[in-house]
Amino acid sequence: MLSQFYIDDLIKTALTEDIHYIDVTSDLLLDDNDVSTAKFIAKADGVLAGGKIAMRVFELIDKDIASALLKSDGDEIKKGDVIATLKGRTKSLLKGERSALNIMCHMSAVATRTRECVKLVEGTNASVACTRKTLPGLRPIQKYAVMVGGGKNHRYNLSDAAMLKDNHIDAYGSITSAVNALREKVGHMVKIEVETRTLEELKEALAVNVDVIMLDNMDLDTMAKAVKITNGKAKLEASGNITKENIADVAKTGVDIISLGALTHSVECFDVSMKITKE
Amino acid sequence: MLSQFYIDDLIKTALTEDIHYIDVTSDLLLDDNDVSTAKFIAKADGVLAGGKIAMRVFELIDKDIASALLKSDGDEIKKGDVIATLKGRTKSLLKGERSALNIMCHMSAVATRTRECVKLVEGTNASVACTRKTLPGLRPIQKYAVMVGGGKNHRYNLSDAAMLKDNHIDAYGSITSAVNALREKVGHMVKIEVETRTLEELKEALAVNVDVIMLDNMDLDTMAKAVKITNGKAKLEASGNITKENIADVAKTGVDIISLGALTHSVECFDVSMKITKE
Amino acid sequence: MLSQFYIDDLIKTALTEDIHYIDVTSDLLLDDNDVSTAKFIAKADGVLAGGKIAMRVFELIDKDIASALLKSDGDEIKKGDVIATLKGRTKSLLKGERSALNIMCHMSAVATRTRECVKLVEGTNASVACTRKTLPGLRPIQKYAVMVGGGKNHRYNLSDAAMLKDNHIDAYGSITSAVNALREKVGHMVKIEVETRTLEELKEALAVNVDVIMLDNMDLDTMAKAVKITNGKAKLEASGNITKENIADVAKTGVDIISLGALTHSVECFDVSMKITKE
Amino acid sequence: MLSQFYIDDLIKTALTEDIHYIDVTSDLLLDDNDVSTAKFIAKADGVLAGGKIAMRVFELIDKDIASALLKSDGDEIKKGDVIATLKGRTKSLLKGERSALNIMCHMSAVATRTRECVKLVEGTNASVACTRKTLPGLRPIQKYAVMVGGGKNHRYNLSDAAMLKDNHIDAYGSITSAVNALREKVGHMVKIEVETRTLEELKEALAVNVDVIMLDNMDLDTMAKAVKITNGKAKLEASGNITKENIADVAKTGVDIISLGALTHSVECFDVSMKITKE
Amino acid sequence: MLSQFYIDDLIKTALTEDIHYIDVTSDLLLDDNDVSTAKFIAKADGVLAGGKIAMRVFELIDKDIASALLKSDGDEIKKGDVIATLKGRTKSLLKGERSALNIMCHMSAVATRTRECVKLVEGTNASVACTRKTLPGLRPIQKYAVMVGGGKNHRYNLSDAAMLKDNHIDAYGSITSAVNALREKVGHMVKIEVETRTLEELKEALAVNVDVIMLDNMDLDTMAKAVKITNGKAKLEASGNITKENIADVAKTGVDIISLGALTHSVECFDVSMKITKE
Amino acid sequence: MLSQFYIDDLIKTALTEDIHYIDVTSDLLLDDNDVSTAKFIAKADGVLAGGKIAMRVFELIDKDIASALLKSDGDEIKKGDVIATLKGRTKSLLKGERSALNIMCHMSAVATRTRECVKLVEGTNASVACTRKTLPGLRPIQKYAVMVGGGKNHRYNLSDAAMLKDNHIDAYGSITSAVNALREKVGHMVKIEVETRTLEELKEALAVNVDVIMLDNMDLDTMAKAVKITNGKAKLEASGNITKENIADVAKTGVDIISLGALTHSVECFDVSMKITKE
Repeated sequence: MLSQFYIDDLIKTALTEDIHYIDVTSDLLLDDNDVSTAKFIAKADGVLAGGKIAMRVFELIDKDIASALLKSDGDEIKKGDVIATLKGRTKSLLKGERSALNIMCHMSAVATRTRECVKLVEGTNASVACTRKTLPGLRPIQKYAVMVGGGKNHRYNLSDAAMLKDNHIDAYGSITSAVNALREKVGHMVKIEVETRTLEELKEALAVNVDVIMLDNMDLDTMAKAVKITNGKAKLEASGNITKENIADVAKTGVDIISLGALTHSVECFDVSMKITKE
Repeated sequence: MLSQFYIDDLIKTALTEDIHYIDVTSDLLLDDNDVSTAKFIAKADGVLAGGKIAMRVFELIDKDIASALLKSDGDEIKKGDVIATLKGRTKSLLKGERSALNIMCHMSAVATRTRECVKLVEGTNASVACTRKTLPGLRPIQKYAVMVGGGKNHRYNLSDAAMLKDNHIDAYGSITSAVNALREKVGHMVKIEVETRTLEELKEALAVNVDVIMLDNMDLDTMAKAVKITNGKAKLEASGNITKENIADVAKTGVDIISLGALTHSVECFDVSMKITKE
Repeated sequence: MLSQFYIDDLIKTALTEDIHYIDVTSDLLLDDNDVSTAKFIAKADGVLAGGKIAMRVFELIDKDIASALLKSDGDEIKKGDVIATLKGRTKSLLKGERSALNIMCHMSAVATRTRECVKLVEGTNASVACTRKTLPGLRPIQKYAVMVGGGKNHRYNLSDAAMLKDNHIDAYGSITSAVNALREKVGHMVKIEVETRTLEELKEALAVNVDVIMLDNMDLDTMAKAVKITNGKAKLEASGNITKENIADVAKTGVDIISLGALTHSVECFDVSMKITKE
Repeated sequence: MLSQFYIDDLIKTALTEDIHYIDVTSDLLLDDNDVSTAKFIAKADGVLAGGKIAMRVFELIDKDIASALLKSDGDEIKKGDVIATLKGRTKSLLKGERSALNIMCHMSAVATRTRECVKLVEGTNASVACTRKTLPGLRPIQKYAVMVGGGKNHRYNLSDAAMLKDNHIDAYGSITSAVNALREKVGHMVKIEVETRTLEELKEALAVNVDVIMLDNMDLDTMAKAVKITNGKAKLEASGNITKENIADVAKTGVDIISLGALTHSVECFDVSMKITKE
Repeated sequence: MLSQFYIDDLIKTALTEDIHYIDVTSDLLLDDNDVSTAKFIAKADGVLAGGKIAMRVFELIDKDIASALLKSDGDEIKKGDVIATLKGRTKSLLKGERSALNIMCHMSAVATRTRECVKLVEGTNASVACTRKTLPGLRPIQKYAVMVGGGKNHRYNLSDAAMLKDNHIDAYGSITSAVNALREKVGHMVKIEVETRTLEELKEALAVNVDVIMLDNMDLDTMAKAVKITNGKAKLEASGNITKENIADVAKTGVDIISLGALTHSVECFDVSMKITKE
Repeated sequence: MLSQFYIDDLIKTALTEDIHYIDVTSDLLLDDNDVSTAKFIAKADGVLAGGKIAMRVFELIDKDIASALLKSDGDEIKKGDVIATLKGRTKSLLKGERSALNIMCHMSAVATRTRECVKLVEGTNASVACTRKTLPGLRPIQKYAVMVGGGKNHRYNLSDAAMLKDNHIDAYGSITSAVNALREKVGHMVKIEVETRTLEELKEALAVNVDVIMLDNMDLDTMAKAVKITNGKAKLEASGNITKENIADVAKTGVDIISLGALTHSVECFDVSMKITKE
């Protein structure tokens, strides 16, 4: 789904950082005839993301490595599961190990965290979305991992959808005038969202027919009222201080989208180890 | 300390991901005369890292932005502290906000987590070190943030120091023969570390005078014995399953270095927000 | 508005293609003290786009060149108008001339063609939009030039908005089922457009509440009926075989957007020459 | 003939602009088993250029796509001709369609325009040449397309041949002294051309034995006299205000080369569509 | 004269190779207040090339470094001469030292070797030219250094001038037919050279009016005859086994150009050291 | 051993410099059916390095070229030896010839020079090491060629090992305090070397247990004394003014490492020619 150009460049970046010149241990000690098998073994429960990318790391290092991916992106993994097996030159396996795991484990961490949130809102109308709080160069794999986990992507960047904040509204005096000004200029394929902090702002945004309204840091009660007032005339997005503890309650207010930066910026690495056995 | 080439490329990557073509909200709504001041305000306690890089983001977007960095990398920040102030075109501030915060907050998260660990081992001989468990393209800022937090860097990559694992040792039959083989080939500026799992392996590694010995997943008792046996003849590195809960006890065994992947791969974003006020 | 990174990379590409190693005429014949003034003079009527980029070319070649841009992007230019004046080393002026003109003249050509179309639909409800029919590496300046000319951008790329064609609909059996399938998966900030060829398809698309409906190669009569049927419930885009001759009539049917590939892929270079006079 | 590195980079640029992150329509709606055939069908008469590059686009997107190119670069195409057929995943065909056509149609437009001019001068001594009026990053494919159309390339860039303009001549006082100064410095593999506006200048240029003399914006009569005066002692290039209407007359004056910027900067896209049929 | 883009990229390459992450000595030991002066001192006699590029290295590392270049490219340097002085942060001076010297010393080595050859042929008609025997990425600075030394550039690459070898001639049966075939296709700004091994071949090349004829590995006598036969109707280039010992004799045969790969591929580093003194 | 990413980028750089747009001789004269065989023939004695990289050049130009490498990196080559044979399109062979030879001949020159030095110290304890005196972008192939020649690599760059010079020591007042300051900050995998000019400095460095001590420009006598004093407690590196003439004597003093910039910065190209025969 992601561009092969992007993936290969990402892997090149990772391998160049990690190997740089040569691997002074493996390149000097192991010869080309030293062959091993390797297994990727999960050391925790979670959701896999980035499996194919991890295999691609080895393919780019040494095209003679044979790999079999036993799990697919989106699969729920149990501690002890074998995710993939590889066979080839020991030195190539050792050179790719860290880069492959660094990418796959981070992506799986994002997918795992997302799945957890998605399950907490099951049965409600709400979907879970990530934000632009991503790391430089990693937005594609982070946004993809959110989808793998069952979440949805918010706008990908500042180009593809409009979001009016206080600062934009202030410049025009009101939500109404700012939205109208933007409609004059923006293309017809761009959605418009407005950040609101009160029900009055919500009503004004509804009146100018914006596509999406963000309920910024509202309490549960206010959100429920917002849902009632809106009555399906716009999508409502809850944002701000959403945690595992309160996400289910937020979802029950009837909002359409719940967005969390933590899906991408504060995940705990999904632990996978590579076990190598000499042939 | 980090190369300006690297930093500028990193920022270019971040901004290109986030703005891509144009900012369809700010570029279309705000004109060049719309000027604001902005403040970076900490929303939690932590250690700052990446302050100058965050300021550089705005400098690269719009050279007319004036910025004042009120805290330095390594400073302990309290919730509510103002980290920096900026003044310039509102649209430029809004375009840089997310990229600047994404980088600085991640770096500060790494520094904060590292400082926490460093404090837990205070009074012992042990230093805290990060690993190669970093994210593609971010190794320089992650390793730098560890230093800012008071930690030390392990080998930077596979080129600059040797670490013999099972797989290398198996290929030569013994630690002794593998280390000797490597000494024949490797340059005189490269340190050699050997992974050990038992005290027997430790003794063999000591006998061939390696520079550093990793005690891999050993229990506290075994580590204490290892320290005694080693008696300063090599550096000892504790590795595997180190947590906030057990790190102080590990340090008390007398090991020289304690390494943790979690310093870089599992941090919780340090929360900073940017408040913009129209002039 | 466009990223300075992109602009500078574009200029670097242009200059590297054109100068490559050295300018064997100017670098060998003219010394640093040979100074001239230069004027950019329009040789036809049109709309300026890319003026600042043209000035930036000279700034990157030789930071001692002083330039004054006398017209702004979007200005209507008459044959004989002086667009800009420059002063500096003759050799630097000659080295930048071709690259600066190649970029600015192409951008102005796009803006000029767009303005022409925009004027032809004045007084109607219709806006004029470009397509994805752009040249590799030039999409940002081409899409920007369309805006300068008074047109609007269609979706920027395949990522930022959805457009269902026959092939997508066939895979799901009907417009209804395809649109519903997509709604399940796509983020809440992505608009959905459906291509239709008949009024039946239009009605089905309306029934599933898509944001935009393309009327593909319909005749004027059918378009007028489509507008009536739609009655404001979706945006209507006329596409296919739009020419200067028929665009006004298409606009009068009441469609919201008229899109033309020719705004970007078939323009006639806007002719500007640079006159250099030795100081 | 063109470097595969250049072509692949160009395609990467095009695809990255057009797909960016994911194709939100095809990637989300179509699965890997959805397979189609596609045909490239000419919608106008013209000369093909870039056929292999278009096929390469699909190869880089999805190596499982099978393609057959039915026409070669340089072939004259009739409206309705099938240029190529492809078979593979529907989503891959849709993702490559626009980039492949954008490149091939522009190249074919250049080749078509060139062929038209070449035919107009048939039977004379004149060859048709393009200029440095190309678009950033596209010079290689534009210059190549001119050759495919039967035209010739003028100097490729400022490095590979010398052309003395007014400004160079002014710096040395006369054509003679400027040419002599350059001969002292330039390598022996570099040709020297001088721009002339009068027959006096022509005579001076002939007297110093330059390789090529440009007749800049001269009328037909003067050009004919220039040919007579020159009598084969240098190549003569007619330049300035050459159109389809006057090119045959210019050729009949006996000049050797006629150069036109319009071959590359003002072409009308050669219209080709891709028809996709589900298997 | 060389493009600033190229120079800055070259310096970025050098510094990234040499500093990589941080300078573990200077970055950790020296603080920003530690300031020194530095001198570049020649340790041998030679010709300077690359002086400005060396200064640019420091400018890119630390814009606060002040530098004064006391010698210009092309100047003859004596052992002990001070080439440049610098003042700024000690750590910045140390970080730039190696990269600046590596580039400047190699360039000066090329210029020195070239000057030596140029002097050996003084008083004859011959000029000294380099070849395409350069190192990857360094062709621009190597070719430039040859010019600085007083030599001339042969064709820059395979694009800008034609050279027919045996293999080309074999494909067409004779020099005559090969040259004629090429003339049909090549642009009018491209010179044609033919490699010859005998006087018969020389005569055939003369008969088809090629621009330059290479006398490949001919002895002095044959070269002298070639000069006589040619009588100014083409440029003659002596090539093959030219050494410091025989170059003067070759020049005296009357050839126009003497080309040597050794100017670029076998030079002895021009020794310059940087002396740093703490302020 | 070297990264394929690096090698392919290096080759891309070389080919882009050398072919640029098209090969105006071979691309225009030779068609795809013109097939030849080629031989790489040594024209001098030496040590091969870069054989596989040379073959890779042709693979990247034209994947239909078949190649057989008859010698391996590190092999001693005699004048007249055939190093490799190739078969494929004549034009592809001619387009790759120069780039392949430029890289391989330079690498072999480094390996040859290194082997020469290694042989001169045979029977002693000393190893021969290169320095950071390399050319921009070529450090990996130069350092690799040194290993192929039997030499060892000094530190690869400023990041991977510490070397204290006068300037660092001055900042702290003494070797002792500077080394101690560094130990506080540097990671445990980084070796520390100190430059010394006298036996007093050597003793101080020994007393603080540095890993390596450089004996900078000492005479043979002093070096011998240094070896005695050191008695194996640190590695000793002789540096400065080492030549073919004195290297054996230096080695006999008992030092561990002898480092020479000349291994990489002043080599004489190893001469190999490519002979092409039409099939």
